[in-house]
Amino acid sequence: MTKILVDAMGGDNAPAAPVQGSVIALENDKDLRLVLTGRKEEIERELSKYKYDKSRLEIVDCPDVIDMNDIPTEAVKRKQSSLIAAFWKLKKEEDACALVTAGSTGATIVGGQLILGRIRGIKRPALCPAIPNNRGGVTLLCDCGANAECKPIMLCQFAVLASAYAEAGFGIKNPKVGLLSNGTEEHKGDPLHQETYKYLSQMPAVNFAGNIEGRDIMLGECDVAVADGFSGNVALKSMEGCGKLVLGVMKKEFSSSLSSKIGYLFMRKAIKNMRGQLDFEKFGGALLLGLKKVVVKSHGSSKASTIAASIANAASIYRGGLVPAVEKKLESIDFDALIPEQE
Amino acid sequence: MTKILVDAMGGDNAPAAPVQGSVIALENDKDLRLVLTGRKEEIERELSKYKYDKSRLEIVDCPDVIDMNDIPTEAVKRKQSSLIAAFWKLKKEEDACALVTAGSTGATIVGGQLILGRIRGIKRPALCPAIPNNRGGVTLLCDCGANAECKPIMLCQFAVLASAYAEAGFGIKNPKVGLLSNGTEEHKGDPLHQETYKYLSQMPAVNFAGNIEGRDIMLGECDVAVADGFSGNVALKSMEGCGKLVLGVMKKEFSSSLSSKIGYLFMRKAIKNMRGQLDFEKFGGALLLGLKKVVVKSHGSSKASTIAASIANAASIYRGGLVPAVEKKLESIDFDALIPEQE
Repeated sequence: MTKILVDAMGGDNAPAAPVQGSVIALENDKDLRLVLTGRKEEIERELSKYKYDKSRLEIVDCPDVIDMNDIPTEAVKRKQSSLIAAFWKLKKEEDACALVTAGSTGATIVGGQLILGRIRGIKRPALCPAIPNNRGGVTLLCDCGANAECKPIMLCQFAVLASAYAEAGFGIKNPKVGLLSNGTEEHKGDPLHQETYKYLSQMPAVNFAGNIEGRDIMLGECDVAVADGFSGNVALKSMEGCGKLVLGVMKKEFSSSLSSKIGYLFMRKAIKNMRGQLDFEKFGGALLLGLKKVVVKSHGSSKASTIAASIANAASIYRGGLVPAVEKKLESIDFDALIPEQE
Repeated sequence: MTKILVDAMGGDNAPAAPVQGSVIALENDKDLRLVLTGRKEEIERELSKYKYDKSRLEIVDCPDVIDMNDIPTEAVKRKQSSLIAAFWKLKKEEDACALVTAGSTGATIVGGQLILGRIRGIKRPALCPAIPNNRGGVTLLCDCGANAECKPIMLCQFAVLASAYAEAGFGIKNPKVGLLSNGTEEHKGDPLHQETYKYLSQMPAVNFAGNIEGRDIMLGECDVAVADGFSGNVALKSMEGCGKLVLGVMKKEFSSSLSSKIGYLFMRKAIKNMRGQLDFEKFGGALLLGLKKVVVKSHGSSKASTIAASIANAASIYRGGLVPAVEKKLESIDFDALIPEQE
């Protein structure tokens, strides 16, 4: 049994979406056990709408909820919230494999670091979503916002973490790693990226393919795009904005005339497929990499199907052996010898 | 007469595209005069394919061409190339209003700084494309790659430059300016962006609306998105990649079955409109802002229609009074008092 903790109060549609998502996930995967943390009464009210295997779902009552106005470091210390309780259980219970939340990103990062803890040797955890690409696969973008300020060693570690994720989560052997910069030539970028380029070239544990540009993320030049959290976030959100614009324009254009409305009837399936390829959320949230157990951050606006995908993703990554894979990769790298300590 | 210099040898499709683009531009605008720089024989061979008003087109013979392998600073000193000759004429001839090139970005920036020169008080020129947005208008993204490393004063000046462009080029009164960061809250970003936020808030000459995220560029939250050249480039290229993915998926899906092929026949016009809204190039290239005259960098892969749009854009911006507008804005700002000199 794979036991996963679900923050039932996290996200804009909680507790309805996390509860329904959990029911869907249990139905799809008979080897799954879920523990929902949150306000018991509200969770039970939602659960009463569905049929599900009661022997595989447990509720842990937490009266408190962290909201977007809370300061993460404060909230983590102070509150008996659904997210914090989930982190404590994840840490303490040996059979707890993973955590899924659609709650505050900041609180998830802080809780992950302060309660669960980092894998030995890792400087900072990183957020890593899977972006649909032109090859019909995904490009892992790491970091996409956990660290606005980075040092070369952090970027090198992001490369290791996301490579392990590509292998454990998507079965990609020897994943190709690109460094997100403002051009493909080696000299491109600021000193942070120029130095990182040099170090990544010297790491046999990373299949480094050089610099990539923003367009290469969705055009699928690499399996992993390493980024500082600032420009990684800019890249992710820029692609999201473009996707939203496209869906908006599509909706408007395709109902703009009788002719295009008729056309739409013939093309419904094709258009649905297209929407699917632009739907970042179906890929199951962003992993918070570098922690001692699997943590999946689902989008704040997650619907039930998104939460279900995030739970399935968490289970699959745990079973793929993400954390042991990271630890094994780290064994072969002496970061202190590779990268001189700065400041 | 608005006299514009066209680098006839710049870009992947030169001289065919710049020459045909020039002919189209002359046809569309009877108040335009063009000077084409490049290999006279090749230009004349292309020109012989078209009818055009010979009294409004002049050729300046330049035997040399800068290619992508040249180091910009070297090429600018050494070569009698089409681009460098155009910059010299732009500088020396009082009636020359603007320059359009699809050639090397690096050489354009270096030539702009070393030959033409910056507007008094401006630290660095910046590349500023117009991105189609959800409101049916454009968002000006400044800088998108001229400066991988920035200081707060540069970002503040980009805000001034792009605001003047929004007014002179698109008639936007009191344009709304956002600072591209990894979140909308004031404290988001690295020290560069946190400091810039503070200074922009203190500049009455800029209608500052706070931080924006990557998605807001295409969703059109602001008229101007101020960015450091590194993350601005990442944003631009990420949106480009998403646009390319969409067009690719559309092509594939819309020919995937008989039903969708039939649908396509009904929707041709809607789909064409949609493509148009995703076509960054039709918006007429990126402006190189901060120089003493109007310089437009067209995409390296520009077709004739793109060059024609860039020429039209250059003419319209010159006539809108971009450079005087920048100078007037600068008069009212004391950057030395606002931003203490660093390092």
